[in-house]
Amino acid sequence: MAEEKTTILDYETVALDDEKSALLIIDQTRLPYRTEILTLTTQEEIWNAIYLLQVRGAPAIGVAAAIGIYLAAKEITADDPQGFYEQFSKAKEYLASARPTAVNLFWALNRMEDKVKENSGKPVAAIKRILHDEALAIRDEDVWVCKQIGEYGLSLVKPGDGLLTHCNAGQLATVKYGTATAPMYLGQERGYKFRIFADETRPLLQGARLTAYELHESGLDVTLICDNMSAMVMKKGWIDAVFVGCDRVAANGDAANKIGTSVVAAVAKQYGVPMYICAPTSTIDMATLTGDDIEIEERPAEEITEMWYEERMAPAGVKVFNPCFDVTDHNLIAGIITEYGIARAPYDESLKRIFEWKEKALAEKKNL
Amino acid sequence: MAEEKTTILDYETVALDDEKSALLIIDQTRLPYRTEILTLTTQEEIWNAIYLLQVRGAPAIGVAAAIGIYLAAKEITADDPQGFYEQFSKAKEYLASARPTAVNLFWALNRMEDKVKENSGKPVAAIKRILHDEALAIRDEDVWVCKQIGEYGLSLVKPGDGLLTHCNAGQLATVKYGTATAPMYLGQERGYKFRIFADETRPLLQGARLTAYELHESGLDVTLICDNMSAMVMKKGWIDAVFVGCDRVAANGDAANKIGTSVVAAVAKQYGVPMYICAPTSTIDMATLTGDDIEIEERPAEEITEMWYEERMAPAGVKVFNPCFDVTDHNLIAGIITEYGIARAPYDESLKRIFEWKEKALAEKKNL
Repeated sequence: MAEEKTTILDYETVALDDEKSALLIIDQTRLPYRTEILTLTTQEEIWNAIYLLQVRGAPAIGVAAAIGIYLAAKEITADDPQGFYEQFSKAKEYLASARPTAVNLFWALNRMEDKVKENSGKPVAAIKRILHDEALAIRDEDVWVCKQIGEYGLSLVKPGDGLLTHCNAGQLATVKYGTATAPMYLGQERGYKFRIFADETRPLLQGARLTAYELHESGLDVTLICDNMSAMVMKKGWIDAVFVGCDRVAANGDAANKIGTSVVAAVAKQYGVPMYICAPTSTIDMATLTGDDIEIEERPAEEITEMWYEERMAPAGVKVFNPCFDVTDHNLIAGIITEYGIARAPYDESLKRIFEWKEKALAEKKNL
Repeated sequence: MAEEKTTILDYETVALDDEKSALLIIDQTRLPYRTEILTLTTQEEIWNAIYLLQVRGAPAIGVAAAIGIYLAAKEITADDPQGFYEQFSKAKEYLASARPTAVNLFWALNRMEDKVKENSGKPVAAIKRILHDEALAIRDEDVWVCKQIGEYGLSLVKPGDGLLTHCNAGQLATVKYGTATAPMYLGQERGYKFRIFADETRPLLQGARLTAYELHESGLDVTLICDNMSAMVMKKGWIDAVFVGCDRVAANGDAANKIGTSVVAAVAKQYGVPMYICAPTSTIDMATLTGDDIEIEERPAEEITEMWYEERMAPAGVKVFNPCFDVTDHNLIAGIITEYGIARAPYDESLKRIFEWKEKALAEKKNL
């Protein structure tokens, strides 16, 4: 079932509808043409949504999987813990097969499975209730992380500022707020009136298709530019800060993100614009010492030569280099914004402190 | 008439075929799908070729117009100078109307007209012969300018170097060699074995459609990348020098060129790669004091939002900023390569010296 919407900010990208026993998602394969909310009730529908990238972005996939496995558990008819666990495991295996490379998919499913194991002595109805609450906890934590990043990000800018972002680290990749977009949405709630510039982000144009879409639909002032126009808008003095997301941050602060991020970083340095990496602590990997240790995936040449696989834009047979990510040197980064605060250079020290604060906060929460 | 070719380096982009009384051009509207040499014999065909951008690039248009007006003159039946000049003027007016904003079109046609005026006392057959030679002189001068730029550019690099270019300042915009590509083609003739990287150059993809095409077809080692990948290839150490063309150079060395050039410049500075502007002296405007005085044309939003006017790639109604050019600060430029030598900072002095050398060379030529 599909429902059409004209704005998205009122809708979470991924949500649980208890009444309909359904997972609600914004179908990202229809963007930017149409905003469609899908109401998914069967495991096959949920599997397909993950497989077909109707839901995408690591946090959003994790929450969709958690809600999905809860909905599967709710339908299990066995009323003995052993029988319940067997059917739960089958459902988990099925959902996990939808996108075998999505780390957050397994992370969320494993966390849900841990709850089943921890509570195996309880009645099945109680376990189902616990799974319901755990799925919502995973969702709430994602919203909290994004909102915290938004608060810290907002502290770095002022009303009316010009902000540039690259690719989509937006609400569409999370449940709400996004990471790089969190300061923008929070600022909107507080009347900041930012002027936002979105890089289109070749080759797959996530900036044009997703970021420009979600900001525009949400009523923010967004202007779309090509990736090669960042120097011009910065030279004109239109940009006060750059906010981007990240795929992985190394212990020294080097940050891997969508290809082109390090181009924005070099240009921002040239024009004296601070560049901030919005990084949930889940993306900071202290076991990766520097960006040189991050392997960069290369993608098919056709993404560049055949423009949406329809029309050839380059001579047949020409060589192509198409890396998916690049690594931004830590010395080009003004700050790494996490849900536990802003890390500043030297990052090897400040990132450690972020994790100390996180551990302390989690310990305090446990003791409550 | 169309003839298919598989390589282009043996063919000049624009040529005169005396035997067929024809202007030969590579049809650029068919690239990169097909290499077609058009044999244009009527004024209507030549007008159309200019109007339809089958021939493009300021120098190439100038040469096409010179050959075109010569072919028109050749067909004039009047054998008295007055009658000849009247018909010549009509033909000139007709060709000039094909692309009213192309400065080189008028420059070339005026130069041809000057020859008619200077020689009005001679028999018509002699004037026709003079026009033939003048058209070829315009062509030869273009080839000479490009070759000189190639020689000076080649002196800045060494065999096996990695070179990056942006947009198309290639053979396809001139008669032969191009400007930014001149060191590459000359290097190829001398066994330099460069590894060349071509930015695709959004939004109109001249790098993918034209530069990657002409270098690949000519047998050079070229790799196509998106504009946002320049930092990655430079960080990897793959690039030893950047060569780009330019639309206008100001007296202080600021250079206007295709949008994105100043992004490449900032990235090159970050990674210590020298960036050279290849600028025939005809593009250096000493009356323009700085880049701030250069007006930048903006182009339609649809070039960015609708990807080749076929499929919408961005939400309807989103704002777009689409400047056609940007200005690269002179302090990011390692050298400006002209046909009379390489200007280095401070440019306000070195560019003046370039023009002194040019005047001296032209005076010496006259005295021969």
